[in-house]
Amino acid sequence: MPALADNQFLVRNLYLSIDPAQRGWVNEDANYANPVAIGDVMRSLAVGVVEESRCSSVEAGEVLYGWFGWQTFCVTDSSAILNRIDTELAPASAFLSVLGINGISAYLALELIGQPQAGETILVSTAAGALGSIAGQIAAIQGCNPVGLTGSDDKVDACQTRFGYRRAINYKTSNNLRNDIAELCPEGIDIFLDNTSGDIADAVVPRMNVGGRVIQCGTAAVPVWFPPPMGPRRDREILTKRLRHEGFVVFDHLAQFPRVIRQLAEWLATGQLTYDEEIEQGLERAPAALEGLYQGENRGKKIIKL
Amino acid sequence: MPALADNQFLVRNLYLSIDPAQRGWVNEDANYANPVAIGDVMRSLAVGVVEESRCSSVEAGEVLYGWFGWQTFCVTDSSAILNRIDTELAPASAFLSVLGINGISAYLALELIGQPQAGETILVSTAAGALGSIAGQIAAIQGCNPVGLTGSDDKVDACQTRFGYRRAINYKTSNNLRNDIAELCPEGIDIFLDNTSGDIADAVVPRMNVGGRVIQCGTAAVPVWFPPPMGPRRDREILTKRLRHEGFVVFDHLAQFPRVIRQLAEWLATGQLTYDEEIEQGLERAPAALEGLYQGENRGKKIIKL
Repeated sequence: MPALADNQFLVRNLYLSIDPAQRGWVNEDANYANPVAIGDVMRSLAVGVVEESRCSSVEAGEVLYGWFGWQTFCVTDSSAILNRIDTELAPASAFLSVLGINGISAYLALELIGQPQAGETILVSTAAGALGSIAGQIAAIQGCNPVGLTGSDDKVDACQTRFGYRRAINYKTSNNLRNDIAELCPEGIDIFLDNTSGDIADAVVPRMNVGGRVIQCGTAAVPVWFPPPMGPRRDREILTKRLRHEGFVVFDHLAQFPRVIRQLAEWLATGQLTYDEEIEQGLERAPAALEGLYQGENRGKKIIKL
Repeated sequence: MPALADNQFLVRNLYLSIDPAQRGWVNEDANYANPVAIGDVMRSLAVGVVEESRCSSVEAGEVLYGWFGWQTFCVTDSSAILNRIDTELAPASAFLSVLGINGISAYLALELIGQPQAGETILVSTAAGALGSIAGQIAAIQGCNPVGLTGSDDKVDACQTRFGYRRAINYKTSNNLRNDIAELCPEGIDIFLDNTSGDIADAVVPRMNVGGRVIQCGTAAVPVWFPPPMGPRRDREILTKRLRHEGFVVFDHLAQFPRVIRQLAEWLATGQLTYDEEIEQGLERAPAALEGLYQGENRGKKIIKL
């Protein structure tokens, strides 16, 4: 264990986050974060408890959410902290999921880019995932009509019974996804929260209404982007329907995290919001868990418990 | 000549507008306006003088800018009027160009979607066209760094000497458009006013800066969109750079026309703004003039004089 320098503290990780974005971070190419080099510790959000501190703003015993990596212990400084965890509000693991970047992303992507109006139709392309399972519920709370695409009949059921979706379909068993989406959204789509890109997005965009918003939160259906794969050009549709297509990265909005966490925790407390976690035990499970996200295996948030 | 019904008036057209959008209006497919049917008068903006009126708000002798069609005379009502023309401000033809939808589009697309900040780099993909020739000047007035792509060395010269562009290049003679754009925009591109789509846009988008805005004003490089042609997917770039790609249709903003026309006329009066028109004589020239736009033949606004 390295000795602590001034302003450093030692965290013992309790839970590690498994996020689709991590797949992008291990590409060699430019991204919104620098690539993780071969031999480095895998960049990851985690929840951990402070064991020892030489940092004046951090005390031993505190539980923190931050950039502590796929490792059991982490020596770092206060720049790594995203949030200080109040375990009265929810179990510590929830601060990686519904009260972590997934729930916060769902809330802020809708608020800042989607700007939902009551009655609007919101389609989410990974409806039972860590973000989608929260987005459906938020959209429902806000009086919208959330509809979901997901990858199994079980998940369709979870979307409709637990995650706020009025309707959801299994895109994997659809014989004609465009037609099925048209039937799912008889009044068109006002907001498309796109976590997949690729063929799924191609089937959604033609159903957008005039003035619709496409929020690019992820690109989980396309693991390799260099060189970029080909797809149907959307420029004409963007022009004639005055669509807005915009990328969302939650880390641009750190200052808003406390406000959003308070709102989400309030909905948890009143029972308006629920969440699923899939927790696996052991650091060695992390790489396969990330791969599993891209296979669409998870329902809710995938977490590694140490 | 048809007899006037109540609330109608008779316009004698003076100038007809030739606009890239007209190519889209004669497709069979959905657009932001209904298709022009075979046998109908071609939909067109025009400047005309009122010869006779049974409409209380319109007087004989007034000069109007409106939807008067590719025809010598037009019987219509006040719903066809876009603007009443004050010929003290500028010659009547200017109300089809710099004080018409081209100048107004350049101004509002930048203001409403581009939201330019002083010092930002703005790339325009038809820099010497009816819209681009005004957009460069507006961007320069606003303290930005406008750079242009255009289709001949003569037009490059006009862009740099008359249309406000700091630099422009001839995309047709470029051996490597991506490299040439990188050299043209050493600090990247903050706003891309895209009038072309297609290969040209593909070379521009990879140079966008984080937080960049892509304004889709036209798709002149791609005459047929059904089925949509293929191109490199942009979703990853939109996500990682948090780009905003949005369509702009000037007719959504009719209420702002008077304000924008006043501003543009003021810049004309002070000599800060100049404009080019290519005026051809005779209704029979209109179809070929429209085709010529798609060949990139024009510099400034193409107009038919009757």
